[in-house]
Amino acid sequence: MSPLLNPKRTVTELKELRALTGDDNGAQRVAFTPMWSKTRAWLQKKLDDLPLETHCDAAGNLWSTLRGESDQALLIGGHMDSVPNGGWLDGCLNVLAGLEILRRINTQYHGKPPVTIRLVDWADEEGARFGKSLFGSSACSGNLDMNEARNLRDKDGILLPDALKNIGVDFERVKDSGKELQNAAAYLELHIEQGPVLLDLDLPLGAVLGTFGVERHAITFHGQAAHSGSTPMNRRKDAFLAAAKMSPEIYRIAERSHGGVCTIGSCTTKPGIVTSVIEECRITLDQRHLDAAALAQMLQEARDASEQFAIEGNVQVSWERLWQIAPRPFNDELIALCDEAIRETCGRVHRLPSGPLHDAAEVARAGVPTVMMFVQSLRGISHNKIEDTKEEHLELCVTAFDRLAEKTMAWIKSS
Amino acid sequence: MSPLLNPKRTVTELKELRALTGDDNGAQRVAFTPMWSKTRAWLQKKLDDLPLETHCDAAGNLWSTLRGESDQALLIGGHMDSVPNGGWLDGCLNVLAGLEILRRINTQYHGKPPVTIRLVDWADEEGARFGKSLFGSSACSGNLDMNEARNLRDKDGILLPDALKNIGVDFERVKDSGKELQNAAAYLELHIEQGPVLLDLDLPLGAVLGTFGVERHAITFHGQAAHSGSTPMNRRKDAFLAAAKMSPEIYRIAERSHGGVCTIGSCTTKPGIVTSVIEECRITLDQRHLDAAALAQMLQEARDASEQFAIEGNVQVSWERLWQIAPRPFNDELIALCDEAIRETCGRVHRLPSGPLHDAAEVARAGVPTVMMFVQSLRGISHNKIEDTKEEHLELCVTAFDRLAEKTMAWIKSS
Repeated sequence: MSPLLNPKRTVTELKELRALTGDDNGAQRVAFTPMWSKTRAWLQKKLDDLPLETHCDAAGNLWSTLRGESDQALLIGGHMDSVPNGGWLDGCLNVLAGLEILRRINTQYHGKPPVTIRLVDWADEEGARFGKSLFGSSACSGNLDMNEARNLRDKDGILLPDALKNIGVDFERVKDSGKELQNAAAYLELHIEQGPVLLDLDLPLGAVLGTFGVERHAITFHGQAAHSGSTPMNRRKDAFLAAAKMSPEIYRIAERSHGGVCTIGSCTTKPGIVTSVIEECRITLDQRHLDAAALAQMLQEARDASEQFAIEGNVQVSWERLWQIAPRPFNDELIALCDEAIRETCGRVHRLPSGPLHDAAEVARAGVPTVMMFVQSLRGISHNKIEDTKEEHLELCVTAFDRLAEKTMAWIKSS
Repeated sequence: MSPLLNPKRTVTELKELRALTGDDNGAQRVAFTPMWSKTRAWLQKKLDDLPLETHCDAAGNLWSTLRGESDQALLIGGHMDSVPNGGWLDGCLNVLAGLEILRRINTQYHGKPPVTIRLVDWADEEGARFGKSLFGSSACSGNLDMNEARNLRDKDGILLPDALKNIGVDFERVKDSGKELQNAAAYLELHIEQGPVLLDLDLPLGAVLGTFGVERHAITFHGQAAHSGSTPMNRRKDAFLAAAKMSPEIYRIAERSHGGVCTIGSCTTKPGIVTSVIEECRITLDQRHLDAAALAQMLQEARDASEQFAIEGNVQVSWERLWQIAPRPFNDELIALCDEAIRETCGRVHRLPSGPLHDAAEVARAGVPTVMMFVQSLRGISHNKIEDTKEEHLELCVTAFDRLAEKTMAWIKSS
């Protein structure tokens, strides 16, 4: 570990931030709210101690730049926003670890590192207020769907463009933020795992292979309402029976896929009264895999199963795609560097895909070589006040992430 | 068929009532509404042509009495109220067939039949407005839960006692209606089947063995919310998986029960979002059987299965009883008379239980010998504007029900 790096300071700052922006129910740093602005002001004060150029881009992302000998830039990213009643680490760990690394690099290279270093705090990674995640990074990568985003409203009916105007962002110009990526040579992101894989393996850190591709659908089975007392079992067209059979089936599909996951996240029934056979049952299905062909296969198997169950139950089935995103594999050379950094820090390493999406997926999509590092999550829980990571692991991750940053600077120089 | 009986008139009167109280969406004779009062006024006018004593009892049930040589009374019952957007036959067929039979008996016996004949129009069989069925008959049988009923409100917040006051009924005295059953020697009720059994057997009429006992429960599975992308399949505590397994299982339970039915009528999920494993899943289960021991067995098997699925899925399960009613078998001798009447009318007969509840269940519960006759329902559908029965079957049922009334008068005399 570099003697100039102080990982304990990162833990202290995380606690400082928790005290400032959390309550008994957890973190309350929802993007585009007064608490989020307060968070940014706190961060800005920390940044002011370094010789950085700091500005908000056209999408509200906060960029802090330490100019180097080369314009080629190493980007380190995270997000200060949280879900409501969120955890103390999700998003802000990344930014605060990046801040500590900026301090180390600034000191070590006397304000002039070999390549330019940029820390970015993405705006509204969580999408908690408007229901659409990765706002700032997808605007920057050019992939934000403007027509969809223009009409997003929060629960009070406020439009996203109006909320943006309040913080000085012109919605129609948010994609101008894309110019920030012009000299980007690599992008690094540290994150809590938000799952139990590293915990189960008793490993503090992992190198992330990429983000899962996602297929998200609503599946609706259409049967026939009928009186629960007068309709013999063999005369029923029970929409719930067909939908229910999907639940154990998606476990079999995921198992056959070697590495994918499938989730039924909701189930609604009509008429939904105790005295009637269910006429209509709608479930949502979320399928994820790092391999595009395996993801397509999982989807096809789910479609086939739904049609089989519909035939068996004498009901109809219809599918509606809610959302999809392709798998986003990270850069092989950066994955190897991440491996090295972890191995040098704690001896053992594990490579794993990321189930959740991250801003890193959008940056990778824009063509910037990207990798992420995961630190173990206790209980595998996030988006909840009980989200936690051992302090010694937090310190380890800052150390390993700093090693990765140093290795990546060298990689950029030699590329 | 008695030459004094005119079953075609009953069909004509059913159509007259449909034109008066229905609209494009079906029948609108919801109890305790102006349309229901209009319906009763129309019925009263028909009753006025006969030498009957007519009055409303303390619960709002309308009784029309043709005094006979004996005070022992044959009761014929039905209900003029419907669900909103209901069918043209459910409830009123019974009353109008009873009216035609009163006419025949009055003519044949010159106003003085061997036993007293009483036609009753029960108040609020459907419970459509206040969510509690069999109001008038359960008040009369003495089984109405006063503390529960006192606090029932309609969707506009109006209390049942206030709605009753509007039609001149004092809620606190509704059980005084029980005295109407003092001389009751038998109770007959005709009804559309509301199921597909007679249709499947291609039979117009059936003798009803009794009403099913009902066990109605909410079953809640408690698991753990977890991120749909980051949680490996074998680490999930998926409340929906356990609940879903109940659906095919209740079909197996019903099959083993020989004659019972089981229905999952609703399913709700929490948090119920596309990106989370389901933490809590609540389903409602309605189980019915004519045999009390078989019903208890079905319930036990469902409990056992739910506990097994909870263990398999590493989740918890809890049960809450929503409602129960014991099976109400009808009178064996009256069932035999019903058989005879049907056989004489159309040659073939089938005995079947009633899945739906009827006022007859409350009268039987009060100790009055009871039987019901069912007439075939097209499509097995009721509580819907498409509810229908062939006109020739409607005429047949009036004829057979009249024969049953005549046989029951003789049975009362000879008892």
